Amino acid sequence: VTCFSKDNIMKQTDGLFHQVFDEVAKEYPEIENEHWIVDIGAAKLADTPEVFDVIVMPNLYGDILSDVAAQITGSVGLGGSANIGEECAMFEAIHGSAPPLAGKNIANPSGLLQGAVMMLNHIGQTDVAQKIQNAWLTTLEEGIHTGDIYKEGFSKQHVGTKEFADAVIANLGKTPKLLQAVSYAGAGALQLPTYKRKKPAVKKLVGVDLFVHWTGSDPNELAQKIKTIETNEASLSMITNRGIKVWPDGFKETFCTDHWRCRFKASANGEITKETIVALLTNAIGASIDTIKTENLYEFDGVPRFSVGQGQ
Amino acid sequence: VTCFSKDNIMKQTDGLFHQVFDEVAKEYPEIENEHWIVDIGAAKLADTPEVFDVIVMPNLYGDILSDVAAQITGSVGLGGSANIGEECAMFEAIHGSAPPLAGKNIANPSGLLQGAVMMLNHIGQTDVAQKIQNAWLTTLEEGIHTGDIYKEGFSKQHVGTKEFADAVIANLGKTPKLLQAVSYAGAGALQLPTYKRKKPAVKKLVGVDLFVHWTGSDPNELAQKIKTIETNEASLSMITNRGIKVWPDGFKETFCTDHWRCRFKASANGEITKETIVALLTNAIGASIDTIKTENLYEFDGVPRFSVGQGQ
Repeated sequence: VTCFSKDNIMKQTDGLFHQVFDEVAKEYPEIENEHWIVDIGAAKLADTPEVFDVIVMPNLYGDILSDVAAQITGSVGLGGSANIGEECAMFEAIHGSAPPLAGKNIANPSGLLQGAVMMLNHIGQTDVAQKIQNAWLTTLEEGIHTGDIYKEGFSKQHVGTKEFADAVIANLGKTPKLLQAVSYAGAGALQLPTYKRKKPAVKKLVGVDLFVHWTGSDPNELAQKIKTIETNEASLSMITNRGIKVWPDGFKETFCTDHWRCRFKASANGEITKETIVALLTNAIGASIDTIKTENLYEFDGVPRFSVGQGQ
Repeated sequence: VTCFSKDNIMKQTDGLFHQVFDEVAKEYPEIENEHWIVDIGAAKLADTPEVFDVIVMPNLYGDILSDVAAQITGSVGLGGSANIGEECAMFEAIHGSAPPLAGKNIANPSGLLQGAVMMLNHIGQTDVAQKIQNAWLTTLEEGIHTGDIYKEGFSKQHVGTKEFADAVIANLGKTPKLLQAVSYAGAGALQLPTYKRKKPAVKKLVGVDLFVHWTGSDPNELAQKIKTIETNEASLSMITNRGIKVWPDGFKETFCTDHWRCRFKASANGEITKETIVALLTNAIGASIDTIKTENLYEFDGVPRFSVGQGQ
């Protein structure tokens, strides 16, 4: 099992994903596991897909790379997809609706067929699933191919959607000779392990980010304005713009938008109260500072769980 | 020029990216432009990269797909990269530091060389850039290849990093015979068009999302609790968990975490004040509701610019 993530850059989201992967991997010591940065992992997948078996990754990467994997190993028309939950499950082709192909008898029905085979296995009709899958493999190795996988000199027959389906139906009961036949005896619904909630971490409120809409351009000017709303408990520690620290000691060349993150940290004992946040917002109203969003800054079990500014 | 985005799902971030692409495209009617959903676009790129010329996309997709493109057209070791800004520019190989290759004389130096050629063009040393690039092309077509692109029966000589560099040096002054020689006369620094700020839209505060940390499991119970903090100006309109609407009329099967988004909308004239947000937060303190984040909900020029709940 391989994990793809961009945790070297997306430290919070992908970092959490990789961390949970490692935690779960420990529960299955008999399964080999590894991690690839998604960029070079994607390159490897496109180049030599055969080195991977199961790949887990965040939804958006999986959406993109399942298309790459299917296309590079034949066609996006070949991939089936399953979404398994505790309460329900759904099955589909990996590809989209492809409206330009609609009604022309040229689409490859294999993706939908593969989704259906997964569904049949899931609901326990493994014998039917096996029969369809072996008929489909037989059809492919007979060289009966739709346009997306047809290859001159290799394929035998260029067929449409309907004719491909008819060929699969005609092959029901046959097993492939070149490709490996499947046997689904003993397969069945995927058993999801029960999720156990972990003991919650100890949470400590150490500051707050006020996001401010301001059309000026000089971060020092904004800092002066913002410092007027400080309380005894919380003082301004940093301003970022587009994630980059612009105060204190920012670069004057940094391109700034009208969206500024003003970070307040606890002045004294390392902790602030909710009342402090209300006081900051109230002071902001008085000072005509346009706050548009707040994010509380927490430590969990003593570890800061918020991002630092680029350049901080 | 092709734009890749996932704007059918990531409507706010990728939606904005695609929208700006279309706006800029209109300013250059002489340049053909098109848009692909990034998943099928990535599949097409991996399968038939030659159908694309310039592709623009958000940073993270570009990071992944530049590796795919380079690998599938030869090797990630072949790609150079440029980051051009108004104040400065930087050039590098597209690949990472690849520590397993360090010090073994096996890395392909082409990526760094390509970055350097871009840099030379950028600083106006186009004659030097052209000389290096043609020497590099000559070396490749002579079949002098590092391990990542060496192909038995096609390549002539399997060389290390140093030997490849020596071969390029020896070819300085030559032009390739099979590959097309480059001519950089007239090239130079990329001229960035001046950014013009647009007239700001009219902003209207129509509600606020309070994000609440709550370890319960029944959204109806939370809604009852939350409704006690409503003000005359703002009332609870929706609760989501992981983006999915769980109140009102949620599905009891929805898996909920301890992170709840409680959406307050203006009760009366369609608009709320900042004082209302402060009042809600103050009431939340009184009711021991643990708010961890707020996001103001705005309409810009009359259009809501915030996400709806899945299922809403």
